[in-house]
Amino acid sequence: MALPVETFFLHPDAQGTLQSQIQQMIAQGILSGRFQRAEKLPSTRRLAAHLGVSRITVTIAYTELLANDYLTSRGRSGYYVSENAPVPPAFAPGPIRTDAVDWTRAIGQRFSGGDTVRKPPDWESYRFPFIYGQADPELFDHANWRLCALKALGQKDFTALTTDYYDQDDPQLIEFIARHTLPRRGIAARPEQVLITLGAQNALWLTTQVLLTQRRRAALEDPCYHALRDILSQSRCHVTPVRLDADGLPPDAIPPDTDVIFTTPSHQCPTTGTMPMARRHELLKRAADMDAIIVEDDYEFEMSFLKGPSPALKSLDADGRVIYVGSFSKSLFPGLRLGYLVGSEPFIREARALRASVLRHPPGHIQRTAAYFLSLGHHDALIRRMGSTLHERRQVMSTAITQNKLEIAGQGAHGGSSFWMRAPENVDTQELARRLRARDVLIEPGHSFFAGAAQPRNFYRLAYSSIPATRIAQGVGRVAKEIDAMSNLALNS
Amino acid sequence: MALPVETFFLHPDAQGTLQSQIQQMIAQGILSGRFQRAEKLPSTRRLAAHLGVSRITVTIAYTELLANDYLTSRGRSGYYVSENAPVPPAFAPGPIRTDAVDWTRAIGQRFSGGDTVRKPPDWESYRFPFIYGQADPELFDHANWRLCALKALGQKDFTALTTDYYDQDDPQLIEFIARHTLPRRGIAARPEQVLITLGAQNALWLTTQVLLTQRRRAALEDPCYHALRDILSQSRCHVTPVRLDADGLPPDAIPPDTDVIFTTPSHQCPTTGTMPMARRHELLKRAADMDAIIVEDDYEFEMSFLKGPSPALKSLDADGRVIYVGSFSKSLFPGLRLGYLVGSEPFIREARALRASVLRHPPGHIQRTAAYFLSLGHHDALIRRMGSTLHERRQVMSTAITQNKLEIAGQGAHGGSSFWMRAPENVDTQELARRLRARDVLIEPGHSFFAGAAQPRNFYRLAYSSIPATRIAQGVGRVAKEIDAMSNLALNS
Repeated sequence: MALPVETFFLHPDAQGTLQSQIQQMIAQGILSGRFQRAEKLPSTRRLAAHLGVSRITVTIAYTELLANDYLTSRGRSGYYVSENAPVPPAFAPGPIRTDAVDWTRAIGQRFSGGDTVRKPPDWESYRFPFIYGQADPELFDHANWRLCALKALGQKDFTALTTDYYDQDDPQLIEFIARHTLPRRGIAARPEQVLITLGAQNALWLTTQVLLTQRRRAALEDPCYHALRDILSQSRCHVTPVRLDADGLPPDAIPPDTDVIFTTPSHQCPTTGTMPMARRHELLKRAADMDAIIVEDDYEFEMSFLKGPSPALKSLDADGRVIYVGSFSKSLFPGLRLGYLVGSEPFIREARALRASVLRHPPGHIQRTAAYFLSLGHHDALIRRMGSTLHERRQVMSTAITQNKLEIAGQGAHGGSSFWMRAPENVDTQELARRLRARDVLIEPGHSFFAGAAQPRNFYRLAYSSIPATRIAQGVGRVAKEIDAMSNLALNS
Repeated sequence: MALPVETFFLHPDAQGTLQSQIQQMIAQGILSGRFQRAEKLPSTRRLAAHLGVSRITVTIAYTELLANDYLTSRGRSGYYVSENAPVPPAFAPGPIRTDAVDWTRAIGQRFSGGDTVRKPPDWESYRFPFIYGQADPELFDHANWRLCALKALGQKDFTALTTDYYDQDDPQLIEFIARHTLPRRGIAARPEQVLITLGAQNALWLTTQVLLTQRRRAALEDPCYHALRDILSQSRCHVTPVRLDADGLPPDAIPPDTDVIFTTPSHQCPTTGTMPMARRHELLKRAADMDAIIVEDDYEFEMSFLKGPSPALKSLDADGRVIYVGSFSKSLFPGLRLGYLVGSEPFIREARALRASVLRHPPGHIQRTAAYFLSLGHHDALIRRMGSTLHERRQVMSTAITQNKLEIAGQGAHGGSSFWMRAPENVDTQELARRLRARDVLIEPGHSFFAGAAQPRNFYRLAYSSIPATRIAQGVGRVAKEIDAMSNLALNS
């Protein structure tokens, strides 16, 4: 039987090339049972004319389907659904029903309801996206990343790509990090002291699980990265937020019974401040006196375009007391989900065993791709290019902030990709963000970085990592105007 | 100053193309500070002659380094280290020291010491690898996987590749699983009822965290997948192993206070047995009576080459009581680390929030690559090809087992990729595996699949997923010979 050409149509909103759409349409027709074995397909000419595409497009799609044995060709008589084509399922799914299970009871532990603020998923469609931590397609070295990925997909790397490593990492990536990345932060580490993680988030999570229990205490910077607070509250340990002073985390304010201290010395999150060297030594001394472990999140150190990055806290650590968290989310892109932990072997051993239980290992292909990208020097070249672009954007933004009389609450001495801002006391930045969104401007309200019930409501973050320099002045102008309006409204009410 | 050509050398055991080795050598020389800014490089002709490579290879490497601004070219006078080249670090790493930290005290929770048996990392160099669960380069459709990965690396998919999704998945992959994969198992699910995980391991781990606490009870098949026992023992819930009978998990033997039942009905792990339909209904009834949740690990259902797979337990579930775990590790490759959970929305919501805290989301690129590979029909075509090869291997192995008078303890009625074997009582298969390894044969001893202290020592698994058909008979012969030797030795001693 011949399949009538009218049963073939392309969805107007389908994605991918025309060839892959045709291929997909036919494969799905067979898999769904609509096209049966031995049924004859329209000729390439008829189908091409019917769909309004070129004949060669249909021919290539048919050829692909031949290769995969969805179709067979019988010489001049045309194409047929193959006798060996995959079989559609023998049973139909039942209807979706309402649950008889009482999930309120069945769920033993709840994890939803965290504090993490999300960017709108369509942030790219806003004209003034002062948002933080997404890759800028204008800056990323897409071409070389693609080449490295392709190389890692080669026949030679088949094992690296496909193998179940259990608890191991890609040795090439580990070697590069140990030999090249860490020495640049002043850190000497053997491969056994490094563990690849699914991003910095995963590194912080693993560290928390290994070091903290319900009976132990963690000290956190206040303000700090909100997802870290979620991680710690889920672990149910005691948590003490320590309010920052001008030099960052004040060692004397850390409670003496603290087991683990979390800090971002090189680039405080979110204030972007850099902890001075004297304070770093004090912090290490305080931790040694209390016999506490320090977890150093060294995110964004690569963005030190104003002056070279200060050495990591870990490089000053004579006791093996510092656990170092690194990430490629800022310098490559967050969707990559690659970071790493550096620490003493007994700690790394437990973190590795836990990682194996939770997810085994980060996918082989992305590890190998990153190893190539790093070792061929593309990463360093990218960072330099990003640095010079961010430098320019920062100058433009700094000027715009001054001209608009906005107040900077914190900025990195070494560079970075954002300013930490303070609005007048009477301006709630969550409401500000909501209003600005309607005016095509995205900012990040600051309250969720703070601990406790009495979160300050008037801070916000302005990042310049995803907005072109040419739009910055106008965007900052809109922020200033809206703050003025809200502030005056509040005064007059 | 000119860099002497003698300082350039290629490591004899370096990997990658000559061009990338040269590129890497120069980038590393600059990053390490050995090559300083404005220093002159040897001409392409001199370096090519010195390294014994073609001149065009050196020229291409130099051109790449020019593009990345490691080098500059001054017309006819040659190549120089660029003034803009990345700067080497300003500080040297300190020496690696001995720790002052008492890690026995500092570590709050231990995760090492699990029961998981590892394959030797060099398993591919063995002539008779009867090992389970690794990708066979002869079977995998590497070419099309590579094309799909390349497509997912294209400019159009940049956002899918790089975006921080927080707790979301790639909508294209979710859509394909919900619309095409699950209906083939008889399951109807909305996208909100599906969560992508880092493999089945991660799916089981997330499920355990959400459903079980120290006060709750899990029932497990005995024998079962050993990593699941590790996951449950880390969660510190009560665990009851339930010994299988001929039809799989006997519902009546499940303790009445059980909260969660873990089962592999379509393809029991490791015995490969299929639970009959009547038993499935009994199991669902028993769970409903106890108000327990069932976690169905439907691994390897794709390998049903003898007859079509039976519908999933989840497809018979009228209460929303079954949580379904799927994986692409067996049908694609384990290094991919992609699986999925299907369940009611209140459960998926908590699993999603936990996943976000632990690792945010599986990397965007692998999700999109899998979405393409599935939707273009390559996955189904691959499964069919794998099925026919596994079918052939299975017949060869079945014959060899009979001829060598070995005992099959369990085999799948629908197919699969292994036989579950029983040696004589007096043969310890861990010792058997050790001896066979010296004879170029890898088998998997069975003890670690069993719970408790009195694990049977005489079971083993023989898989045919990674060994060519032509070697099976000889390999099985060696297994039989060694079992005979050990058995006779034991009788005579």
